[in-house]
Amino acid sequence: MKINGIPYRTIWTEGDLPEEVFTFDQRFLPFELKTTALRTSEDAALAIERMLVRGAPLIGATAAFGRYLAAREAPEGEAGSAYLEERTARLRKTRPTAVDLFHALDLSVQATAAVYTKEDRIRRAFQAAVDFAGASAEQCRQIGLHGLDLIRAISERKPGQPVQILTHCNAGWLACIDYGTATAPIYAAHDLGIPVHVWVDETRPRNQGSKITAYELGQHGVPHTVIPDNTGGHLMQHGLVDLVLVGTDRTTRQGDVANKIGTYLKALAAKDNGVPFYVGLPSSSLDFSLRDGLAEIPIEERSEAEVKYFWGMDGGQVRRVLTMPEFSKAANYGFDVTPARLVTGLITERGICSASEEGILSLFPEKVI
Amino acid sequence: MKINGIPYRTIWTEGDLPEEVFTFDQRFLPFELKTTALRTSEDAALAIERMLVRGAPLIGATAAFGRYLAAREAPEGEAGSAYLEERTARLRKTRPTAVDLFHALDLSVQATAAVYTKEDRIRRAFQAAVDFAGASAEQCRQIGLHGLDLIRAISERKPGQPVQILTHCNAGWLACIDYGTATAPIYAAHDLGIPVHVWVDETRPRNQGSKITAYELGQHGVPHTVIPDNTGGHLMQHGLVDLVLVGTDRTTRQGDVANKIGTYLKALAAKDNGVPFYVGLPSSSLDFSLRDGLAEIPIEERSEAEVKYFWGMDGGQVRRVLTMPEFSKAANYGFDVTPARLVTGLITERGICSASEEGILSLFPEKVI
Repeated sequence: MKINGIPYRTIWTEGDLPEEVFTFDQRFLPFELKTTALRTSEDAALAIERMLVRGAPLIGATAAFGRYLAAREAPEGEAGSAYLEERTARLRKTRPTAVDLFHALDLSVQATAAVYTKEDRIRRAFQAAVDFAGASAEQCRQIGLHGLDLIRAISERKPGQPVQILTHCNAGWLACIDYGTATAPIYAAHDLGIPVHVWVDETRPRNQGSKITAYELGQHGVPHTVIPDNTGGHLMQHGLVDLVLVGTDRTTRQGDVANKIGTYLKALAAKDNGVPFYVGLPSSSLDFSLRDGLAEIPIEERSEAEVKYFWGMDGGQVRRVLTMPEFSKAANYGFDVTPARLVTGLITERGICSASEEGILSLFPEKVI
Repeated sequence: MKINGIPYRTIWTEGDLPEEVFTFDQRFLPFELKTTALRTSEDAALAIERMLVRGAPLIGATAAFGRYLAAREAPEGEAGSAYLEERTARLRKTRPTAVDLFHALDLSVQATAAVYTKEDRIRRAFQAAVDFAGASAEQCRQIGLHGLDLIRAISERKPGQPVQILTHCNAGWLACIDYGTATAPIYAAHDLGIPVHVWVDETRPRNQGSKITAYELGQHGVPHTVIPDNTGGHLMQHGLVDLVLVGTDRTTRQGDVANKIGTYLKALAAKDNGVPFYVGLPSSSLDFSLRDGLAEIPIEERSEAEVKYFWGMDGGQVRRVLTMPEFSKAANYGFDVTPARLVTGLITERGICSASEEGILSLFPEKVI
């Protein structure tokens, strides 16, 4: 997608077997987005650990490219294998829960298994990283094409008027390699000239909506308006939302959707007002081992400091301000679970299905037990 | 209610026909609450206009006391009447929509009608202000006593455990003369030793919850936890809320409730999880001229700056920080309407009734057309 009119992916290289891998330092979005070069496997590990990069697919790709840089650093022969193993363990420990991180490293380890020359290891680790990133971007592109049909159908019912889409949190291209998940259909429609307008939930307490989604939509030229998380219900009551599109961190085999805290409230409002509520997801976020999301998905409790303090820009400087009485406590649940009964459909890279075991297995028949 | 252990009302005087009226400057809550003395009718007008005082009942009382100060300033005789009329007009223009403002001034005007000596005018204007404030506080106290029954009943079902109450925005004593509306039952229960714990919605974009409700509950010693507005649904799904208690700006004769934006989303979650959802209101916020709240109550759109910027405390100084890209727009709807079907009951100074025309008229039979 575009920044300042120039198309980017979130992680990229120049030339064959390059010395450096480029990505963005996203920590100060929306106020600053810096390109940063990863030159060592430790650079990659720190980029993940210190959250210069974020989002499961981008974390995965950064780890895979980190392992490629480790292969370059490694000595020849047996000592090289040992070094690579140590660096892989280091990369694996950068973030605790991102499934894509482990998946990407596993693919890289498989690619270099039973390869004994340094040059071969480098080439195969590079190819594994390029392949992981490419496959991830392609999944998002497919989600975009399937979701596009929904937006096009709405647009045909209201010619000349923008399709009004509400989204929560950031399931955008900056969390992925390209396109995003919830945003992929929006970018696809916009790029085809279908008029869209996005209501962007702020997404307290970390404001991924107002800080990241608004930034990436704006940079790509998609019309959008930031709203407090309290606003979506009112908009839906007054016919100002045609479609809700969100991402997910984990969806169970019966279609219960864990996503950023507050998603459930928007799903309730969508149901109450007959607004379609869709979830964009790569199949890697389907957890076939779980059934009842409310009972089985553990919800992370995060630091109260994220609620108590807000960081923003004042006079060219990023500052952290206290939002509430010092003496009060705050609670910070990271996610909630939207029961399948409130979800109109799931948009996967294989197509759209209902949020039910039957629907999901119709697209993923290999998962039938 | 108490601040630093000392009981206060939000507006008070010392002695008979005093030279000054005391209130709080609430503009920098929760970081600073200063006592301020109103010595002239213009002081009172500016206190309302510049929002040192806020909340319909407190605005009304401040205007009534302002008219008392005007009566002190007025010359004897005819010229005094003219002066008082001019100052009353000035006070009437301080805020555009607060019904209590006009109501309080009307009562004061009636009290001084056909009174020709300056001394009499002063005495009657003073008494009118004292009466308005006293009646308003008494209404809130009655709301508290009726709502107390609900809390007590829940407490009896879970002895030894706190009754978990969720509230949105600030319908507290700092917006009233004392007790508050939604908070009155909470203070009543707490003061009787019934254990309560309040989940305080931040209430973006102006954060009246985290800035004012948290402050006043904390100062009075009521256990509470601030939560992002996204959180209530998750808490209700997991049985962590026994009761939702909110205020209202305007309730129609069929029981549709206009309140701070986001209230509707909490009402949906309460309904979905079988949590009782009650609204505390003095009868002055019942609008018998309206029926269908969604169709008939106009919703104020406020400045986008309230969403784009957040003000908080940093290093002993209140600062305003930018929260989102400068290039993005923001929308700021002040209120939403919760349909009567989602409201378990209305707690008025005359008792509790269902949110329906039948229920409301059973408490206010004089309004039967």
